[in-house]
Amino acid sequence: MRTIKITIEYLGLHFKGWQIQRPHQRTVQGVITAAIKKICQHPVTVIGSGRTDSGVHALGQVAHFKTSSSLSCEKLLKALNAHLPQDVSITDLCNAPNDFHAQYSVITKTYRYVILNRQSRSVLDHDLCYFHPHRINVARMKRASTSLIGTKDFKSFVANDPANRSQQKLKSTIRTITDLSISRNKDYIYIKITANGFLYKMVRNIVGTLIKIGEGTLPEKMIQDILKAKDRSTAGPTAPAKGLCLLEVKY
Amino acid sequence: MRTIKITIEYLGLHFKGWQIQRPHQRTVQGVITAAIKKICQHPVTVIGSGRTDSGVHALGQVAHFKTSSSLSCEKLLKALNAHLPQDVSITDLCNAPNDFHAQYSVITKTYRYVILNRQSRSVLDHDLCYFHPHRINVARMKRASTSLIGTKDFKSFVANDPANRSQQKLKSTIRTITDLSISRNKDYIYIKITANGFLYKMVRNIVGTLIKIGEGTLPEKMIQDILKAKDRSTAGPTAPAKGLCLLEVKY
Repeated sequence: MRTIKITIEYLGLHFKGWQIQRPHQRTVQGVITAAIKKICQHPVTVIGSGRTDSGVHALGQVAHFKTSSSLSCEKLLKALNAHLPQDVSITDLCNAPNDFHAQYSVITKTYRYVILNRQSRSVLDHDLCYFHPHRINVARMKRASTSLIGTKDFKSFVANDPANRSQQKLKSTIRTITDLSISRNKDYIYIKITANGFLYKMVRNIVGTLIKIGEGTLPEKMIQDILKAKDRSTAGPTAPAKGLCLLEVKY
Repeated sequence: MRTIKITIEYLGLHFKGWQIQRPHQRTVQGVITAAIKKICQHPVTVIGSGRTDSGVHALGQVAHFKTSSSLSCEKLLKALNAHLPQDVSITDLCNAPNDFHAQYSVITKTYRYVILNRQSRSVLDHDLCYFHPHRINVARMKRASTSLIGTKDFKSFVANDPANRSQQKLKSTIRTITDLSISRNKDYIYIKITANGFLYKMVRNIVGTLIKIGEGTLPEKMIQDILKAKDRSTAGPTAPAKGLCLLEVKY
């Protein structure tokens, strides 16, 4: 059996997230598993670097699977893409060492959040950004965001979702954000966050809080108080899924 | 009567281009005219900077119209956008001098063409770029493109379309390209062209020819021969509409 590593691009819009859950729910893991079964002609388990929520996009999600197929990587890539729907594409496929694990071998992940900050709504990238018409001060956001960098307990930024099984298993809420950049290009604001791991809805809760600070609704120093409180209710709202994209996973 | 200048963003996908043609065909000019009639409560003629073809997008199309409405620019902008479908948005609206004419006052227009040049198809921006899996050499394209800059007769790059009325009226095929840049960012190739005006399908015919040169199918020096020939059949194919976007119109 070979271990295959794949890099995947998908539009989150019509998926109930990455992970297979209830039957009849369309998930990225589900459509990829089906394509591999069809091409490799054996049952398969596809393991992703982690879940992405319903509606979240990816340019560089990574997954692995084991196969007895003797197809070359190039042929396997072409065959799989021919069996995938239009909103998913495998952008890279290669042999990996047998002990490679898409989830456990992760060193860092990078997410990007895109906000369209102008009066008129988004058109060309309607499904790929969050339209926020109220003026956001990026300098305020930047100053506030520095408190998030480093190894911290992000408990206040974890979503309260009792239905979510992975949260019940959750042990530590400590993560390390190694890089957080915020930039504006005309009407677009880009927030890029790299960490050794992310908690459930952590990026969207951080972005929702930073937007409130950028608008002036929450004070700049608030991030420090929120981190100290270790209480989700102290942070801002969850930013919408469609602005979020998993850019890259490093191993 | 006031003269109003509007800047418009639209996704070309579901439009039969900018210009109102036969009844029941959905055009950008058509939906904008309908929205203005509804808000201003009088008949109106909306004049654009020029046509864009079926499927071509715009980030900065410009148009003007005359109205007796006393609504402020801010209110007019909001009211019009509230009456426009999701794939069109007026991004700017202001009063213009009475002699401002969106078509005749144009100094330059800038178009951008986006090519996705990799093995696996486009996903996130499926409707906004042309997917071309065969490897393109950007350095070859760049060298070839220098022959297009300046004041030239672009007759070889005008589409042969006898059904097209504007072509029958066409007199000169001489235009001035003031800027042409080609760049690659990972798998994306961007071709940006600024000129004092463009002929029917000129950008897409130039791009189609440059792609053939970048692939190595046509020689680098071919552009000079094509320009000299003044014959459409000497140039490359027309690149697909969905990769093209009208970026900016300068007055």
